[in-house]
Amino acid sequence: MTFAMAKPRGFEKPAGVKDYLPHVVAKLRHIEQQVLDCMKRWGYEQIMTPTMEYYDTVGVASATSDSKLFKLLNNRGTTLVLRSDMTAPIARVAASLLKDAPLPLRLSYHANVFRAIEEEAGREAEFFQTGVELIGDPAPEADAEVVALAIASLQAAGVSRFKIAVGHVGFLNGLLEEKLSGRAEAQRELKEYLLSRDHVGYRERLRSLGLPERAERELEDILRLRGGQETCRQAKGLSADLSARSAIDHLCAIWDVLDAYGVTEHVLIDLTMIGDFSYYTGMTFEGYAADLGFPVVSGGRYDNLLAQFGRPSPATGFALKTTRILDLTGGGADESGRGRTLIGYDAAGRAAALAEAGRLRNEGRIAVTARISAREAEALERAQRGGGPVLHNGAAYERFERFIGPSGAGAGGGGNDA
Amino acid sequence: MTFAMAKPRGFEKPAGVKDYLPHVVAKLRHIEQQVLDCMKRWGYEQIMTPTMEYYDTVGVASATSDSKLFKLLNNRGTTLVLRSDMTAPIARVAASLLKDAPLPLRLSYHANVFRAIEEEAGREAEFFQTGVELIGDPAPEADAEVVALAIASLQAAGVSRFKIAVGHVGFLNGLLEEKLSGRAEAQRELKEYLLSRDHVGYRERLRSLGLPERAERELEDILRLRGGQETCRQAKGLSADLSARSAIDHLCAIWDVLDAYGVTEHVLIDLTMIGDFSYYTGMTFEGYAADLGFPVVSGGRYDNLLAQFGRPSPATGFALKTTRILDLTGGGADESGRGRTLIGYDAAGRAAALAEAGRLRNEGRIAVTARISAREAEALERAQRGGGPVLHNGAAYERFERFIGPSGAGAGGGGNDA
Repeated sequence: MTFAMAKPRGFEKPAGVKDYLPHVVAKLRHIEQQVLDCMKRWGYEQIMTPTMEYYDTVGVASATSDSKLFKLLNNRGTTLVLRSDMTAPIARVAASLLKDAPLPLRLSYHANVFRAIEEEAGREAEFFQTGVELIGDPAPEADAEVVALAIASLQAAGVSRFKIAVGHVGFLNGLLEEKLSGRAEAQRELKEYLLSRDHVGYRERLRSLGLPERAERELEDILRLRGGQETCRQAKGLSADLSARSAIDHLCAIWDVLDAYGVTEHVLIDLTMIGDFSYYTGMTFEGYAADLGFPVVSGGRYDNLLAQFGRPSPATGFALKTTRILDLTGGGADESGRGRTLIGYDAAGRAAALAEAGRLRNEGRIAVTARISAREAEALERAQRGGGPVLHNGAAYERFERFIGPSGAGAGGGGNDA
Repeated sequence: MTFAMAKPRGFEKPAGVKDYLPHVVAKLRHIEQQVLDCMKRWGYEQIMTPTMEYYDTVGVASATSDSKLFKLLNNRGTTLVLRSDMTAPIARVAASLLKDAPLPLRLSYHANVFRAIEEEAGREAEFFQTGVELIGDPAPEADAEVVALAIASLQAAGVSRFKIAVGHVGFLNGLLEEKLSGRAEAQRELKEYLLSRDHVGYRERLRSLGLPERAERELEDILRLRGGQETCRQAKGLSADLSARSAIDHLCAIWDVLDAYGVTEHVLIDLTMIGDFSYYTGMTFEGYAADLGFPVVSGGRYDNLLAQFGRPSPATGFALKTTRILDLTGGGADESGRGRTLIGYDAAGRAAALAEAGRLRNEGRIAVTARISAREAEALERAQRGGGPVLHNGAAYERFERFIGPSGAGAGGGGNDA
């Protein structure tokens, strides 16, 4: 059912999307550059993919639920989507344009992605992600590399206090299959509670399942499985299931590599962390900044995705929520006019003024030219002599240069007293 | 009518959109950075706006014909468009978020824009533009500033040989209204021929109009009105219409300022140049690179657009066709592995190898780590002794560092003879 809505007013923009003014753009661009440079130093090379993809390929393969995809039709009547993440498009490229490139592939990106939203929720329909994909390496070293790079990327972005929670979907799947064999719906429900971090709901549902006391206790114990390396050892005692044990072994190996990177102070093992995404097949992780309730980075291993594009390959990666980091880090705005020169001129001084502006710009400095009256020039000179930035038309400048020629000075009646 | 199309295959992407691989992204990013830096030195500050806008506001105000807009519905059933240029969105921002910012506003952008295309034409449905808008200044100096900045931007992008053709829609409109008063359809047809640069078609249509000999000759003469400052003088003799003469005066004044900027060697006055866009109201220009038939930059004055968003104001600006410049300029790819170090390690050498990688990255260098066998390490060392780049998994490196510990060396049977 479609309601007849009032026409949007001229200055309105759609819900969930943003304009970024210069001081915010400067900050966003700085973060983007720092993070991409960091990824480059780790050997990751940047790629770009289209905003629009086929619904039947990338749309279906993406981890975003169908109702959250923005859909549109092309001229041929084929359904397209606005990309909802970069992992599926990069998998497509790895299987097409890069199909002959040897593995492993280390690729980075900075891109806007789209999610149709409940407008009431105040969530963003378009936001930026900066991330990497490491394609073709199944080893714990590869998982540890992307976790360590996520840590380095957060630091490069200016985020200093954060924790990375690392889990493994194989552990939880194995444990649940062991304790709740054949009860797929109950397994799914428990995972939903964990995904939404609703531990009360998890406990209540667990107690309603009529499990043997020990199984129930063990499934409850996982809520407390958060910590350092010792968490892996404790987890090993919880399940005899082979895939659960293999998951724990993989996680222990990741921890050892992270220890070699010297970054375990930022890492927490959390075996209830299963990741938001249906395509994760192994290690998953989320990064939380101090005092923020939502993750600023998330990632994990997705060994089944590439096969959907015709090039079966293990892969692991992460995405920084760049727009959230933007809200998190300070600085950015520089309203002092630092480094900006205002060059005021009249008709007679114009050629000299434009030449001076060119000279400053060639030196890499910022120069703005403005045709002004002799009276304005005097006021600007007074402000300059008073120290502090010079203001003109609401903009601040560090310096003012006057190019009012003899005829201009005569016409305006002002003296050239500079 | 919609045809039932075959499902796209997994690796396919929609027609008219592109993947950019690392060596092309490096080039595109370089151009983007150089051009934005250039614009910054002229006092232009970067803003960003959403990919999606309301159809009824920005969609309708944009210069793109309705059939070329990508449309989609949001959750409320309101029609959205993917932005087809940045001029209309920036006008919206100038009239909303920036409504209290004093004029003139100098804003720059780098953004992808979207045009629904005839797939057969091989045209791009998504491409990049880098441009500026100078809002709030009606003077010839403002028009000259954006033309001179377009020239500086092309040079910053690495385009050295190009010509900027400058015209004025007011001259042509005034001249046609004078010679073909009340014959709106004939005027429109002649303008269409000029827009598509079909001079043969223009002459034929002109001769079929039954005009007095002198009027016909004068309307034919404008086809030859291309050149330097003398073109303005010649044009003044062609029309007694006030708006045509006022347009020529404005154009002469622009030429004088461009002369003061010292850039007239790149400029050609072309009075048949009316610009592709319905919203241009004054000076229009297009830049052509040597040996290319399509413009790499286009711009002009649009004094009526801001009023549509509730803040009437004169404005002028341009957009570089960044993606076209990308195809035009050389360089970019660097496949030699320069500056890249490969650090090979085994289990025993891992901690030292990861520490060494961290050290290099902290120095700003590129380091890739790989677990390798002693046999591989020896092959890599042989290649390194042979000079030239070291190849591993298809990627090139300038240097190889070996971290194969005693146990690893023992297991692999190789000696550490580096």
